[in-house]
Amino acid sequence: MTTSTTPARRRDATRQRLLDAAAEVFAESGLDAASVEAVCERAGFTRGAFYSNFDSKEELFLELAARVWEARIGAVAVRVAELEDGGHLEVTTDAIQAVVQRVLDGPAEDRLGVLLMSEIRMHALRNPRFAEGFLRQQDEMHSSVARIIDDIGRSTGVRFRVPAADAARLFISSWESTLVRAVMAGLDDEEREQRCRAEVAQIAHLVLAGD
Amino acid sequence: MTTSTTPARRRDATRQRLLDAAAEVFAESGLDAASVEAVCERAGFTRGAFYSNFDSKEELFLELAARVWEARIGAVAVRVAELEDGGHLEVTTDAIQAVVQRVLDGPAEDRLGVLLMSEIRMHALRNPRFAEGFLRQQDEMHSSVARIIDDIGRSTGVRFRVPAADAARLFISSWESTLVRAVMAGLDDEEREQRCRAEVAQIAHLVLAGD
Repeated sequence: MTTSTTPARRRDATRQRLLDAAAEVFAESGLDAASVEAVCERAGFTRGAFYSNFDSKEELFLELAARVWEARIGAVAVRVAELEDGGHLEVTTDAIQAVVQRVLDGPAEDRLGVLLMSEIRMHALRNPRFAEGFLRQQDEMHSSVARIIDDIGRSTGVRFRVPAADAARLFISSWESTLVRAVMAGLDDEEREQRCRAEVAQIAHLVLAGD
Repeated sequence: MTTSTTPARRRDATRQRLLDAAAEVFAESGLDAASVEAVCERAGFTRGAFYSNFDSKEELFLELAARVWEARIGAVAVRVAELEDGGHLEVTTDAIQAVVQRVLDGPAEDRLGVLLMSEIRMHALRNPRFAEGFLRQQDEMHSSVARIIDDIGRSTGVRFRVPAADAARLFISSWESTLVRAVMAGLDDEEREQRCRAEVAQIAHLVLAGD
């Protein structure tokens, strides 16, 4: 039995291909300028295929944003498990930095990913209904990072100078701003990662008590 | 002698009116979608008037961004002078918060201002040449805030846990991210200011040694 030909799998593959194509088209042209037609053309599908998968362009935007957040959160869960298995979850700036870095190092965080997230942010600023879903997603992302920070606090006894939720917000906003500046400056992958790492290290230093 | 009719003054008034109109049009429609024609129509001028004042739409974008930064920096200079005249430049989180808040509370920071700055940011992400000018402006803004933080440190003896330049970056990135979220959430002026104030207070708490 080949599972690759079941309708459910084919449907999922179509959906993923549309999402991949949309990520590229939106990042290149902007959300408003990019049409459903352009997304379909890039993916090699008809408009019919699009509308049997998504109600609207907006639903697709939001799912793209969710995909970026999920990749980040999934990556950090793996990293925390690694740290705990290895028994070396240490009370250090380095440990916290490593974890937060992992949350924020999604596969989408290259130039294209930054453009895409900036487009989605812009769209949320203009559209209250879309903003609602976007803010809910962002809150979930913040909560996930806050839970990780709390877990580290509990399992290591390290103390923080601000509540975990505030530390999470701070990590994320500083990291995003550093990333955006790095992309604008045309830095390559390595330099970009180095800047983000330095930024995360500094926030870790600030939020850790007695550091 | 009436100065209002000299060519230089008329020219300046035309330029200001074009800038005001452009701020509105860009915030409403986006930088790419907004045309020079739409800006001229809003301002009540011809394309000729536009091109005798600006070489391109890009030159105008950059001047708009400069205007927002200048308003912020001008406001903080006034505030620091007030504090020093009053002889109550105290070594407190409150004093630093008040100063930084003043830098960041420009007249452009309503919903329209946030949209405009986000559009300019998006444009800088897409256009390396424009990004260069934008990053230079942002660096100047960061330096101005850093100098103010340094001055406060010198005149009050307060110590900071990170270099002034890093503290400045942190204040600005956290504040911007809070402001963007507040606009997305549709908060009114008062609630928005309250959130930004709380954010600035927390950063001040984090960067101040022994606080």
